[in-house]
Amino acid sequence: MSGKMKGWQFTKTHEPLVLVEKDIPKAKPGYVVIEVKACGLCHSDVGALEDPGWMDIIKVFPVIMGHEISGVITEVGEGVEGFKVGDRVAVCPMEPGGTGPGYGRDGGYATHTTAPAEMLIPIPDEVDFIQAAAATDAGMTSYHAVVGQGGVKEGTKVGIIGIGGLGTLGNQFAVQKGAQVYVASRKESARDKALKAGAYKAAENILEFKDEGLEVIVDFAGANKTTAEALEAIAPGGKVVVVGMASLETTINTSSLILKEASIVGSVGGTPEDIKEILKLMKEGKVRIDTEEISFEQVPKGLERLKEGKVTSRLVMTFD
Amino acid sequence: MSGKMKGWQFTKTHEPLVLVEKDIPKAKPGYVVIEVKACGLCHSDVGALEDPGWMDIIKVFPVIMGHEISGVITEVGEGVEGFKVGDRVAVCPMEPGGTGPGYGRDGGYATHTTAPAEMLIPIPDEVDFIQAAAATDAGMTSYHAVVGQGGVKEGTKVGIIGIGGLGTLGNQFAVQKGAQVYVASRKESARDKALKAGAYKAAENILEFKDEGLEVIVDFAGANKTTAEALEAIAPGGKVVVVGMASLETTINTSSLILKEASIVGSVGGTPEDIKEILKLMKEGKVRIDTEEISFEQVPKGLERLKEGKVTSRLVMTFD
Repeated sequence: MSGKMKGWQFTKTHEPLVLVEKDIPKAKPGYVVIEVKACGLCHSDVGALEDPGWMDIIKVFPVIMGHEISGVITEVGEGVEGFKVGDRVAVCPMEPGGTGPGYGRDGGYATHTTAPAEMLIPIPDEVDFIQAAAATDAGMTSYHAVVGQGGVKEGTKVGIIGIGGLGTLGNQFAVQKGAQVYVASRKESARDKALKAGAYKAAENILEFKDEGLEVIVDFAGANKTTAEALEAIAPGGKVVVVGMASLETTINTSSLILKEASIVGSVGGTPEDIKEILKLMKEGKVRIDTEEISFEQVPKGLERLKEGKVTSRLVMTFD
Repeated sequence: MSGKMKGWQFTKTHEPLVLVEKDIPKAKPGYVVIEVKACGLCHSDVGALEDPGWMDIIKVFPVIMGHEISGVITEVGEGVEGFKVGDRVAVCPMEPGGTGPGYGRDGGYATHTTAPAEMLIPIPDEVDFIQAAAATDAGMTSYHAVVGQGGVKEGTKVGIIGIGGLGTLGNQFAVQKGAQVYVASRKESARDKALKAGAYKAAENILEFKDEGLEVIVDFAGANKTTAEALEAIAPGGKVVVVGMASLETTINTSSLILKEASIVGSVGGTPEDIKEILKLMKEGKVRIDTEEISFEQVPKGLERLKEGKVTSRLVMTFD
């Protein structure tokens, strides 16, 4: 391995990513250096490229993007315990203070990157780098919403609104937990897919399940109307978890909220513990994320395809 | 005691209450008959008299109104355990299925009424009937919102929006629990009153406490804007409890909800256990509800005054 690395660098809104070469960083105390094996392409990066609002969120300019990372440790910094050179690891992108990969420091659309030890999750032998990368953001976000914020467990009657990338995973996680899952999607193909994956019932609109006594509804759309409908469909004392941010405002019926003593809870990202649980489910063969592999060179093109909405599974860049 | 009773009966919207005489009911199995000693006047009854929407909520026509009841047991039905003739009791109005006093069966604007044993709460000797009556609805509703749904306990940083009847009590309960209470009210006199009752800080708007790290905010106004502001003012992971229904719709900022992982929870009514806790605080001299006593004959006039917004403390009808 030479002392040089390559990566796709973000400069500012509306400017294409630039391929750069840099020195491979040294491991700071508490950090490791990772040879990247796979990195998922996330719609957030499309946001950063298109929406000037992201300039306030990004902490470092220019920065190598990419935050769904798996790879092999090549150097261990002072004070790191529990990890060694050669370990296969996934990286939780939710670092406190916005210092995470791809926005707060150089990320994973690169041959090498770095991460603090507390954000690392060991990858079981049975799980490949591509699945592990997809687990770190798409997986984590939906698991955290359904199991973390939603508290879904065996026997829970749970509604899932929106069977896109996250909702498909949310359905899988809820089914694996032994919940009774009711999915709502306007797309017939998505409903069929969810039923095949173990959902109990599927409908076009969550309101069709109004009399089913749903205890939790996870709204992966967050399209104002969907959250309002979830509140109408939920059972007394139930909980609506909002993940999607399709609409910046949500208008709800106050008397439904009060008279049902319902709650509406936000969910964002997740934790290394969430990712660990997903990798365990993957190891046991219970969960698999639909992915499409692309090469390092295809990253800008892949983001373009994401922007155009032409991607049906998770795009993951890999060097293999 | 003769076999006859008197009460103020509701027939339909926009019709004044009518004074009626009936036979005192016999105690059904599981129920007791109560000689009413005090009954609080509630703004809900003004709603029922003015808003045709209430015709769907009321289960029995005509019905003697009044649901904030305290009195003495005069007869005990078959199967009732733990209560006997002569016991001083308060009645929890939140019966499952809408069968509660004043709307689902004859209530407390009367010389006599009935109640199921599981809705009775013994009144400690140190607490008078007027305070006990006020505890059953105004007290219960605010206690349930702050301590029940809000989970406020010693050390909690809690915001209270709206220092009217319920908010004043909510402040007292939070202070008694040892919480650090931040009140928001547009009225200077209300803020002063809250501070005297032990609130930590007071301001015109809850947003002034945005940097105080409020863990819970109880919105006794529920005026759309107040709930939206509470969500902006709450700390990450915090909870906004909505009690008031001044507005039928609430529009919130979805990204605040999600990025803070905040929750918005409805609160309505409460439980016999809530009332028991309030009577205990009253017994210990820690909580007292501001009341104004009126006679049985003044009930219609009292409701008229409530409607006109001319009442500053809780109106309670009493025979003493």
